[in-house]
Amino acid sequence: MKQILPQALLDLIEEFGALPGVGARTAERYAYAVLKRDPKRAESLGRSLSRLHSRVKVCPITFALIDEDQEVSPLYEDSSRNKKLIAVVEEPLDIVAIERTGQYDGTYHVLGGAISPIDGIGPEQLHVPELISRIKKDGVEEIIIATNASVEGESTALFLQRYVQEAGLSVAMSRLARGIPVGVDLEYADQITLTHALEGRRSL
Amino acid sequence: MKQILPQALLDLIEEFGALPGVGARTAERYAYAVLKRDPKRAESLGRSLSRLHSRVKVCPITFALIDEDQEVSPLYEDSSRNKKLIAVVEEPLDIVAIERTGQYDGTYHVLGGAISPIDGIGPEQLHVPELISRIKKDGVEEIIIATNASVEGESTALFLQRYVQEAGLSVAMSRLARGIPVGVDLEYADQITLTHALEGRRSL
Repeated sequence: MKQILPQALLDLIEEFGALPGVGARTAERYAYAVLKRDPKRAESLGRSLSRLHSRVKVCPITFALIDEDQEVSPLYEDSSRNKKLIAVVEEPLDIVAIERTGQYDGTYHVLGGAISPIDGIGPEQLHVPELISRIKKDGVEEIIIATNASVEGESTALFLQRYVQEAGLSVAMSRLARGIPVGVDLEYADQITLTHALEGRRSL
Repeated sequence: MKQILPQALLDLIEEFGALPGVGARTAERYAYAVLKRDPKRAESLGRSLSRLHSRVKVCPITFALIDEDQEVSPLYEDSSRNKKLIAVVEEPLDIVAIERTGQYDGTYHVLGGAISPIDGIGPEQLHVPELISRIKKDGVEEIIIATNASVEGESTALFLQRYVQEAGLSVAMSRLARGIPVGVDLEYADQITLTHALEGRRSL
């Protein structure tokens, strides 16, 4: 097909198309929306992108994302947070999800992914040793394994459980409950979720 | 809620969130995907955005989008395209949709929107006068009104039909067929579409 759109627009469509879950039509829509808006806004988005990597760094203790001028995650430094309780998550955005509940007062540890032999990700690619040394240093009493409800997330949880036990650390460990999500009709729940919901039933 | 993510990432999330149909979670996912990738790719997307407006211009005849170094839409200049046939569309991306069919050998005219009194868009905001002068200049014989199947698209089609007639131009005018889209079961078609499909039925 002959080139119908200007090259600069096609370039942008291709770049948008590389974002997760963005198909050709959606990429076209995004690029055209940017073109229709004030050029200043396109430049502002361009600048945000160009400086992103230089302005974001990783906390050396929790591996959460922090500002370039911060030493440690402000959440970890916050004296009102319980340092003896750690929620172990796969990715930094998982912290945002848990914080949204407003029900958690502990700290976090970002693994940086989940164990996935197919993708060549073993425990050595994740921040597991750092978790062990943190448990010792902070005298951690409880760990909530908050990995995803995927095969990789479950394997990672199992691995962590064994790893912490073999390290001879006496720390309470738990896993986020599996069950029916709020607002979902029972008839639409898949059988594995329903099995978990039965197993994890709570007495009234 | 305390700030959990670095400011540079929050800025980018906000900018992505301004794209059409992008909610907070999707914007987070895009921004984090950019952060996880090579910084070079973020810079490249940033550059594409910053130079977009300066490198795209509008064809003064068809109002399609063209490269900065082009005078007129290459599709209009293409001698194999029938200049006496014009498809009138609302937006430049509609050209891409029609070209994808590979079934159209005429040229295009982009209105730049549809008539919408609520949004303050009347015929004077659209490239209607330019269409009339083009009909005269190129000796256009047929116009296909390919506006959207929305209320605004229909009003615009009606307006154009009357406007061209009142200008005393003898040109054949048609409208894209309304009917059941391919692959859709009859029971799921809405009643207006089905009414159009009945009215527009074709004898076998």
